[in-house]
Amino acid sequence: MDMHYEVFEAGNVALQGGATLRDCKLAYKTYGALNSDASNVIVYPTWYSGQHYDNEWLIGNGMALDPAKYFIIVPNMLGNGLSSSPSNTPAPYDKARFPRTTLYDNVKLQHRLITEKFGIQKIKLVVGWSMGAQQTFQWGSLYPSMVERIAPFCGSAKTAPHNFVFLEGVKAALTNDEAWKNGWYDTPPTKGLRGVGRVYAGWGLSQPFYMQELWRSMGYSSLEDFLVAFWEGFFLPKDANNLLAMLWTWQNGDISANKIYNGDFAKALAAITAKAVVMPGEMDLYFPVEDNKREVAQMPNAVCRPIPGVWGHFAGGGANLTDTKYIDNQLKELLTMQI
Amino acid sequence: MDMHYEVFEAGNVALQGGATLRDCKLAYKTYGALNSDASNVIVYPTWYSGQHYDNEWLIGNGMALDPAKYFIIVPNMLGNGLSSSPSNTPAPYDKARFPRTTLYDNVKLQHRLITEKFGIQKIKLVVGWSMGAQQTFQWGSLYPSMVERIAPFCGSAKTAPHNFVFLEGVKAALTNDEAWKNGWYDTPPTKGLRGVGRVYAGWGLSQPFYMQELWRSMGYSSLEDFLVAFWEGFFLPKDANNLLAMLWTWQNGDISANKIYNGDFAKALAAITAKAVVMPGEMDLYFPVEDNKREVAQMPNAVCRPIPGVWGHFAGGGANLTDTKYIDNQLKELLTMQI
Repeated sequence: MDMHYEVFEAGNVALQGGATLRDCKLAYKTYGALNSDASNVIVYPTWYSGQHYDNEWLIGNGMALDPAKYFIIVPNMLGNGLSSSPSNTPAPYDKARFPRTTLYDNVKLQHRLITEKFGIQKIKLVVGWSMGAQQTFQWGSLYPSMVERIAPFCGSAKTAPHNFVFLEGVKAALTNDEAWKNGWYDTPPTKGLRGVGRVYAGWGLSQPFYMQELWRSMGYSSLEDFLVAFWEGFFLPKDANNLLAMLWTWQNGDISANKIYNGDFAKALAAITAKAVVMPGEMDLYFPVEDNKREVAQMPNAVCRPIPGVWGHFAGGGANLTDTKYIDNQLKELLTMQI
Repeated sequence: MDMHYEVFEAGNVALQGGATLRDCKLAYKTYGALNSDASNVIVYPTWYSGQHYDNEWLIGNGMALDPAKYFIIVPNMLGNGLSSSPSNTPAPYDKARFPRTTLYDNVKLQHRLITEKFGIQKIKLVVGWSMGAQQTFQWGSLYPSMVERIAPFCGSAKTAPHNFVFLEGVKAALTNDEAWKNGWYDTPPTKGLRGVGRVYAGWGLSQPFYMQELWRSMGYSSLEDFLVAFWEGFFLPKDANNLLAMLWTWQNGDISANKIYNGDFAKALAAITAKAVVMPGEMDLYFPVEDNKREVAQMPNAVCRPIPGVWGHFAGGGANLTDTKYIDNQLKELLTMQI
């Protein structure tokens, strides 16, 4: 895990919602080196509350995302605590007043990093998990002539209503904590953050995952140990306002919610000419296979390849070798395909 | 809807957990008349937070549960606010101090009502939804020579670990409300109760239910209207301690957790000699079909008949006519079978 990262100073960024993020920062990290004709670029956005180093399980020598071959850029999502976020933005747009940011805002900003900072014109692959998958779809839809391949896994191009509802439950557990103080807390609302973990636990993994006690393979000694040490432990260090900012982005995730597509979702999907391998988790409870199948049917150059097994949404989380190999193999195949 | 009900005064009831519920009350309602040889008895226990009148959608002239033919007894579950509950038990076992009650406690108490009050020796059918299904399994397992048929729908004989975890999320949303005061509230923790609704909303119905906006068929004008008017409205009038008492019963639901079976779940299932039609909701997210299939495979006289469609757990809630007809038809067929 490499905590070090770079920051792209984007200046004053006018967001879709109307606010301007002054001195907007895009934190990112690169792996490998850009080749002479800038033809070896992979973009790999982060997921809900994840930071760049959380993506490293899919990067490595001999893997599809091989830093010896590719120049891999991992941009941190707005709100994730490293890029501009409620937790690091100065007043008056700090904390609860941090403006709403969208998939579109994120990808436009990432596009500036790629073009202005690195002078890149072609991207070999955009890939990402969960909200990272949503940004991946957005990349393919906004920049079809630039993006050659996409591989979104465990994520959709538009947040489904049921997914929205699941997140309402997450939000309720957090905001029901008095210590949250509508976002103006000085000390973290720890009950609320633990509650987020408790609500999330049932959604992140499948029914048979729990029946088979596969948390044992992750090093937990009992179900309660898994709930406390993994789930509560996962959310407890995170900033509540950051979580709520990204949650809003997620709930409103829609690659057609912009002036280019004006909400025409079919048109936004049809624009994704990149060769696409879409990988839902077979038992993902909030990004179900069916949603991706509907999307793939409307994309000109896409296939749907569900990740088999019982790991649910975490099929794409790097938590087990079988699923990681499945994804890695799909990426290897995709990267060798001629465009 | 008939709010009127009777109360069986059970006296001092020693519970599995060690506490004694003094002046324990079992609220119940009957439909139809007991015939001369007491051979027309149907027992239909309630579900999580439901009360007897909430079961009436499956009772009616010309339906399987026809009061013109059968004597239908609906016993209210302990903790549901009508039978002995945190909200109606005098100190010192009131409110947060209400003792833990189990499936076993409930069914033993219901058995006393059936035998002591009505002198009944044979039950033609036990039927129930959700936690009512769990009590139905418990009836079949505890009283095999008494129970001729069972029809549990959208419920299992043992609460699965994932189901347990889902309920942890429900609990977190409720108990994170400062107003809950560890159960010693004077005014209801309304934020917490609304939060229960928000968390529950994603679990109660399936992903395609929301995608297809089937809440419109229930009379709601938008997704948010459904979340507020149905889900928050559903839990807001309920007593928080009652909800937590029943939640504990549910989380610890296991028909073998008693001195008869000593945790031998296979043995408790094998004891259910009643002719059984087990009906999971095809897309139920917390009582999945697989769990019932495993159980049915261990029951000597049972079939599994999933309720088709996208209504998830609410396939068994009486909210749509198609599913109600499916269940009713299965019950009609079961009731005509010779034993």
